[in-house]
Amino acid sequence: MKRHLLEAADLDRGDATLVLDTAAQIDQALAGREVKKLPTLRGRTVVNLFYEDSTRTRISFELAAKRLSADVINFSAKGSSVSKGESLKDTALTLEAMGSDAIVVRHSASGAPHRLANWVRGSVVNAGDGTHEHPTQALLDAYTIRQRLGRLEGVRVAIVGDVLHSRVARSNVRLLHTLGAEVTVVAPPTLLPVGIGTWPVEVSYDLDAVLPKADVVMMLRVQAERMNASFFPSAREYSRRYGLDARRMGALGDDAIVMHPGPMNRGMEIAAEVADSVRSTIVEQVGNGVSVRMAVLYLLLGGNEPA
Amino acid sequence: MKRHLLEAADLDRGDATLVLDTAAQIDQALAGREVKKLPTLRGRTVVNLFYEDSTRTRISFELAAKRLSADVINFSAKGSSVSKGESLKDTALTLEAMGSDAIVVRHSASGAPHRLANWVRGSVVNAGDGTHEHPTQALLDAYTIRQRLGRLEGVRVAIVGDVLHSRVARSNVRLLHTLGAEVTVVAPPTLLPVGIGTWPVEVSYDLDAVLPKADVVMMLRVQAERMNASFFPSAREYSRRYGLDARRMGALGDDAIVMHPGPMNRGMEIAAEVADSVRSTIVEQVGNGVSVRMAVLYLLLGGNEPA
Amino acid sequence: MKRHLLEAADLDRGDATLVLDTAAQIDQALAGREVKKLPTLRGRTVVNLFYEDSTRTRISFELAAKRLSADVINFSAKGSSVSKGESLKDTALTLEAMGSDAIVVRHSASGAPHRLANWVRGSVVNAGDGTHEHPTQALLDAYTIRQRLGRLEGVRVAIVGDVLHSRVARSNVRLLHTLGAEVTVVAPPTLLPVGIGTWPVEVSYDLDAVLPKADVVMMLRVQAERMNASFFPSAREYSRRYGLDARRMGALGDDAIVMHPGPMNRGMEIAAEVADSVRSTIVEQVGNGVSVRMAVLYLLLGGNEPA
Repeated sequence: MKRHLLEAADLDRGDATLVLDTAAQIDQALAGREVKKLPTLRGRTVVNLFYEDSTRTRISFELAAKRLSADVINFSAKGSSVSKGESLKDTALTLEAMGSDAIVVRHSASGAPHRLANWVRGSVVNAGDGTHEHPTQALLDAYTIRQRLGRLEGVRVAIVGDVLHSRVARSNVRLLHTLGAEVTVVAPPTLLPVGIGTWPVEVSYDLDAVLPKADVVMMLRVQAERMNASFFPSAREYSRRYGLDARRMGALGDDAIVMHPGPMNRGMEIAAEVADSVRSTIVEQVGNGVSVRMAVLYLLLGGNEPA
Repeated sequence: MKRHLLEAADLDRGDATLVLDTAAQIDQALAGREVKKLPTLRGRTVVNLFYEDSTRTRISFELAAKRLSADVINFSAKGSSVSKGESLKDTALTLEAMGSDAIVVRHSASGAPHRLANWVRGSVVNAGDGTHEHPTQALLDAYTIRQRLGRLEGVRVAIVGDVLHSRVARSNVRLLHTLGAEVTVVAPPTLLPVGIGTWPVEVSYDLDAVLPKADVVMMLRVQAERMNASFFPSAREYSRRYGLDARRMGALGDDAIVMHPGPMNRGMEIAAEVADSVRSTIVEQVGNGVSVRMAVLYLLLGGNEPA
Repeated sequence: MKRHLLEAADLDRGDATLVLDTAAQIDQALAGREVKKLPTLRGRTVVNLFYEDSTRTRISFELAAKRLSADVINFSAKGSSVSKGESLKDTALTLEAMGSDAIVVRHSASGAPHRLANWVRGSVVNAGDGTHEHPTQALLDAYTIRQRLGRLEGVRVAIVGDVLHSRVARSNVRLLHTLGAEVTVVAPPTLLPVGIGTWPVEVSYDLDAVLPKADVVMMLRVQAERMNASFFPSAREYSRRYGLDARRMGALGDDAIVMHPGPMNRGMEIAAEVADSVRSTIVEQVGNGVSVRMAVLYLLLGGNEPA
């Protein structure tokens, strides 16, 4: 494993598999315990450095660190010395000097975690940077797929929606490719990035054509403010063509699963009855997020062997 | 005990007494200790899910959980995915999936904790919902009365002020009735709820008439913005008729006590010299709040026997 | 040691030396440990009561307390009952009643920590009050000087910049004088306080004249909004006359060091190449801040002997 986790490409197949195996071992170890906590990172400090609000991701990392007995510092950039003009570099050096062992960073600027990693000796974990990457989301998605379907190699995954703006899509495409899955992205042409031709994916504009062949349908969150702009005619039209409703779910194979990184727009990209169906892994994804992040922190800070 | 604590009516007399006895045992146990902490909830996760600001109540629950060695996650709904439109249900399922054992919820909507309780397997504690209930406040008030007066049965309690908007009043009326106290509510007609006739209380509009017979005077916080509206002519007039000043305090019996849930408007509903007098239990109430919340979390998460 | 640390004058030379020695012992003790944590304050509660934003200082105290195994409560006054009109006194009594052992307070009003100290039995640590004092900053600066230069007695320190508004300057002048250093303040006349004649310092308006004789140059943060006001003609002019750039750094003696309390305005009061030079102690100051605050909390809450 590298010292940082900045993007899915930091993990080769061996690394990625090690993270997933470690998460599985952590789940097993805690399942048998009264006290659902491991002493591994006692005395270590993990800083959640969030320049964008994301309560869900922040709590997931906070719980992961606390269940490994680390001390956690939450640093929301709002109202911090950042607003007094402190640079990312000085913030990084400050946290490092205070003895932080890992910085978990969420930033609106693509590439901010990479810059941060140049300035610190500790580990940096990208918790989402702009429209770039969100590698622990891809890891928890891979963990969930493997848990449900028993494998990743050869699994056919459809990633559906606003691929253009989605760091979740970017990280998943990369990691799923590394792990041997076959990815199709499904989106309107206006919501695909310019360089899509160089990605290791199939591209489709027709959700109904893709669904029958998919083992996994991964729905992306849609930002309402992007509808009615130049990207797409209207939210309603979007939902009609790219939303997953009960009718479309009926076209899926028997064992196919439905994923969503949350938070959902029920009724927009996913119907409530789909989100709450037995095919849906949405709640499992959330739980697996804590396990996978424990594994990442454990491997980055504690060792390179399974727990 | 039920699995949740959503309103005072969830507690029958046995349950309520068990909470108070457990709080007393916790107080005794910690008084004799160098390290003022119990290991009871190690490895458990308590989430403070606050949709309304309430630093005082949040800190009280946070300290209660930490003194039982639980991990605490503070989740302020401001700037969270709630603002991205996530429903209370999806937030609940997310926290549950992350392994939260108890959710302590404060919400501006009456009934929100009840809805939450339908969606999770863990425990839900109502930390104040709209104008509805605030049951741990009633428990800490009952604990304080019992501590000062030695009993609750037959104790005469006057609850004074803006009963209409007060969740503190609602929870206290219910719990004090359960525990055998006799409650009189004292308020101007415009600050009494429509259904007051069905409450197990006496009603009075005349504070001076009630004070000589009261063992306990519980002053409610007044929201200044409600004065000068249709509810009451003016803050000054309110204070003159329903405020507790030194002269009125002189009308109380020898052992009578004065309570206030805080934060106080000194000079409005309570004079500074009353708030700081030996009759005042205001500071004790705050301390007892931590003990009672420890008891509640202990009983909901740890067992149904005294500690 | 007194029970509180409200200003640098609370420390006589023996007290101040005890804090620095204790910090050094803590650094040594932790350097040899796998788990960088001491059990000293287990079961104690430290409250960070911040009426002004200061993520950097808050995190430093939070880490200090956590590395001593205390429980930490972060209380940001924004959105608290303070905004419902609760007085500082009631806030203090509330925190005390909840069992806080120490309150670390940052407030925009000079003197607020002193008032707080009148109302509580626990310890109060001033983390910056208005333009008055910031004593732990002075302690970490003294610790850093001693670490770099081996002594404080007779060390010549130039404090440069907006002395008028700087609590850092006030605390440093007092503490450095107590510890036997010789201080010169360098500032434009408009940025010196009226009573500067009574301070135990030399005064100069000419940075270039002072630099060759200084062992330590301590640059103060400049608030841009104070430039172009009546205080000084312009930011550019300020930087030209009182900024520390590479040319000026060249005038320093061989072992002289450059300090800054952070966050820096690179290019304003300090050039980037100076901030990042080997003379700069800026990153060490941050790290020493945690050690010194551990020492302060240890001595105030745990004992009066070195650890």
